[in-house]
Amino acid sequence: MPEYTGYDGNSLEFLKTNKISIGDSVKILADITYSGIVMPRYEHSDDKHIVLKLKSGYNIGLEIAKIEKVVKNPTLEKIVEKSERVVKNEKLPNILLLSTGGTIASKIDYRTGSVTPVLTAEELNSSVPELSKIANIDTKVLFSEYSENIMPEHWLKIAQTVNGYLNSDYSGIIIAHGTDTMHYTSSYLSFSLTGFPIPIALVGSQRSSDRASSDAALNLIGAAKFLTECKTNGIYIVMHQDENDETIACHIGTRVRKNHTSKRGAFQTVGNDPAFLIVNDEIHNNMKDGFFTTSKYSPKIKINEKVALVKYHPGYDPNMLKNIIDAGYKAIIFEGTGLGHIGKNMYPAVKMADEKGIFMGMTSQCIDGRVRMTVYESGRDLLDLGIIPLENMIPEIALVKAMWATGNTENREEVKEIMLNRIASEFST
Amino acid sequence: MPEYTGYDGNSLEFLKTNKISIGDSVKILADITYSGIVMPRYEHSDDKHIVLKLKSGYNIGLEIAKIEKVVKNPTLEKIVEKSERVVKNEKLPNILLLSTGGTIASKIDYRTGSVTPVLTAEELNSSVPELSKIANIDTKVLFSEYSENIMPEHWLKIAQTVNGYLNSDYSGIIIAHGTDTMHYTSSYLSFSLTGFPIPIALVGSQRSSDRASSDAALNLIGAAKFLTECKTNGIYIVMHQDENDETIACHIGTRVRKNHTSKRGAFQTVGNDPAFLIVNDEIHNNMKDGFFTTSKYSPKIKINEKVALVKYHPGYDPNMLKNIIDAGYKAIIFEGTGLGHIGKNMYPAVKMADEKGIFMGMTSQCIDGRVRMTVYESGRDLLDLGIIPLENMIPEIALVKAMWATGNTENREEVKEIMLNRIASEFST
Repeated sequence: MPEYTGYDGNSLEFLKTNKISIGDSVKILADITYSGIVMPRYEHSDDKHIVLKLKSGYNIGLEIAKIEKVVKNPTLEKIVEKSERVVKNEKLPNILLLSTGGTIASKIDYRTGSVTPVLTAEELNSSVPELSKIANIDTKVLFSEYSENIMPEHWLKIAQTVNGYLNSDYSGIIIAHGTDTMHYTSSYLSFSLTGFPIPIALVGSQRSSDRASSDAALNLIGAAKFLTECKTNGIYIVMHQDENDETIACHIGTRVRKNHTSKRGAFQTVGNDPAFLIVNDEIHNNMKDGFFTTSKYSPKIKINEKVALVKYHPGYDPNMLKNIIDAGYKAIIFEGTGLGHIGKNMYPAVKMADEKGIFMGMTSQCIDGRVRMTVYESGRDLLDLGIIPLENMIPEIALVKAMWATGNTENREEVKEIMLNRIASEFST
Repeated sequence: MPEYTGYDGNSLEFLKTNKISIGDSVKILADITYSGIVMPRYEHSDDKHIVLKLKSGYNIGLEIAKIEKVVKNPTLEKIVEKSERVVKNEKLPNILLLSTGGTIASKIDYRTGSVTPVLTAEELNSSVPELSKIANIDTKVLFSEYSENIMPEHWLKIAQTVNGYLNSDYSGIIIAHGTDTMHYTSSYLSFSLTGFPIPIALVGSQRSSDRASSDAALNLIGAAKFLTECKTNGIYIVMHQDENDETIACHIGTRVRKNHTSKRGAFQTVGNDPAFLIVNDEIHNNMKDGFFTTSKYSPKIKINEKVALVKYHPGYDPNMLKNIIDAGYKAIIFEGTGLGHIGKNMYPAVKMADEKGIFMGMTSQCIDGRVRMTVYESGRDLLDLGIIPLENMIPEIALVKAMWATGNTENREEVKEIMLNRIASEFST
């Protein structure tokens, strides 16, 4: 029986009239000629478009009204078959796909033109048929949130879920996640699940999965390939390396940042090449050491949210620091200037924080490069006031590490020791 | 009479024994062979080194104990002559050099090994004899502060001083400045001195001027060349383009950021090439439009410090936003995630800020790329709550602009209008 999932009204009629169903390989003449496979659509889609998966992996939405001609290509077999999706191929490795929401699991609301998170992990998986050739994918929806709404409590839920699959037969785990705060989540998982034996790839997309030019498919395919072939462990962010579709980058989850609001290649490993690159299906390993500095798995998933990130700037009011102290914060991560400085007008408030037993660490708003507080007399003053230089840790990642460290001990000396102990490649030596 | 400024004890004896004085061209055999000109030293220097200016423009400190042989090169004339420094060359243009402190006007304290700001503008000028071939340089010390200690009140003093030279015969003004907050200062000057008729170059260095491998000389030479030949106006940051000494970059003062803690090429124009490049003495102009969108000079140097930069992250406590509201802030610049988002747990506090008449603008912690708040429903919610998307303004620069805007009007609608009005190339269209 022909399959028409998601097609309705005009679009369903169009497919039936032309004797085309989901999975058919077709050539379509519209503004230009498109060749691809007719894809299923989602429940709430409009009835004015059909979705075609191009050879490049992109899904493209074509307006029916603009289609001049459609020809079925009989030489190619159907790729999307419902039965193929559920039967496991015993020869392939297994991957778990956890969905948390974000653009990758979103679709355009054609009424408002904005993007909303609605796809389930199963829908996401089935929208990328190439995945079934790489691995058997089991799917699970954890929640459906844009990543700006992902809170530390969501991190806990992800970590607990992953921890539950410690003794599974999965080769790796994909976590579909919004890109906005993906690097915060990846670093939390890196610290809380230190030594986790199988690799984990956080995957997002800059364009929603049902949209022409979505980068979701290639990122997911790259992640599946990476997880089944990389022969390493650790927590990575797997996304486009740049605007081209040729290279997928696997970034160390504690050394990565979203550095562009909209480009596909928005994520960058700070000050280094990505750990792995997938170029034309080949995996290149740029990692010298392992991801974790220990091979022993010792999950510590507690977290304390009373950690402040203080970005210093001219005109920053030291009273704001006093508010943080009064609110009972356990740690302050300074995003200082240059090599790790803050103005001398901050010294009295810093002294007060030190006396309250608050851990204070220094990072740089330059983002790239190492803090070095012995070069200038002002840096030395700050060392004397008890601020600990945090090597070349990225400010946001230092914040997450301090949340995790203070969640696991209340002793400031122990927090300091944890912060300076390289656990998950969060700073270079 | 031979000149020995700054030499004392062992180093003075070494020079006298070898019949060498300041300005002599010499060849020195130590670990390798060095050719250069003997330079004056500063008052508090030790007596164990002599300083040589190499052909590359770098000053290098050589330990006397390691010098095997020194030969005077009689074919070259002395370059540094005190008399040359004070007599004006009527054929050359004039430049004003204002010193504010920072590494560029610093030297190493050989006792502690740290760097302290002590050089005057005159010392700085005389330490780079090449400058006298480009322009007559008048010098003035404004203050002597590391840039992490430069406060908005210092910005005012710089702007007032520059404004006083409106009708001078200077071709341009160099402001020697610490690099840590140089881009905050350059953006303030860009807004407050809109339309200032002659170009202004903020120049810093990543290594102190008396140190081997200082980048100060080449940055100053590049700035002098730029100011006398660029035929434009505006406020620029002039620094090394990268680790090589071949290219000096002139960055638009509102589109630039210190992106590395220690490299010479630490400053980068965000998302674009620098406005001007000086490559092998030639100036390349990459600017399509003028720096200022008006040619009318209308200084507005007032400033209001009650502006907060709120960097959103998972776990950010909305109560911190309430503290800002309670403290009577006039504007809040959000450094949101991705295209310009903050978590929905922030909405009640944002609503409160809006009701208090506080201006709220959105930028992105991605730094590069444009905020676009119509793509996701969460962005639309924030627009409804009154947050204004600030195009592709760099968060730190948006902060400075909001300080300046709220300093010049208390009317929120006017603040909004100013923030969205492109004044000094602070965002691209």
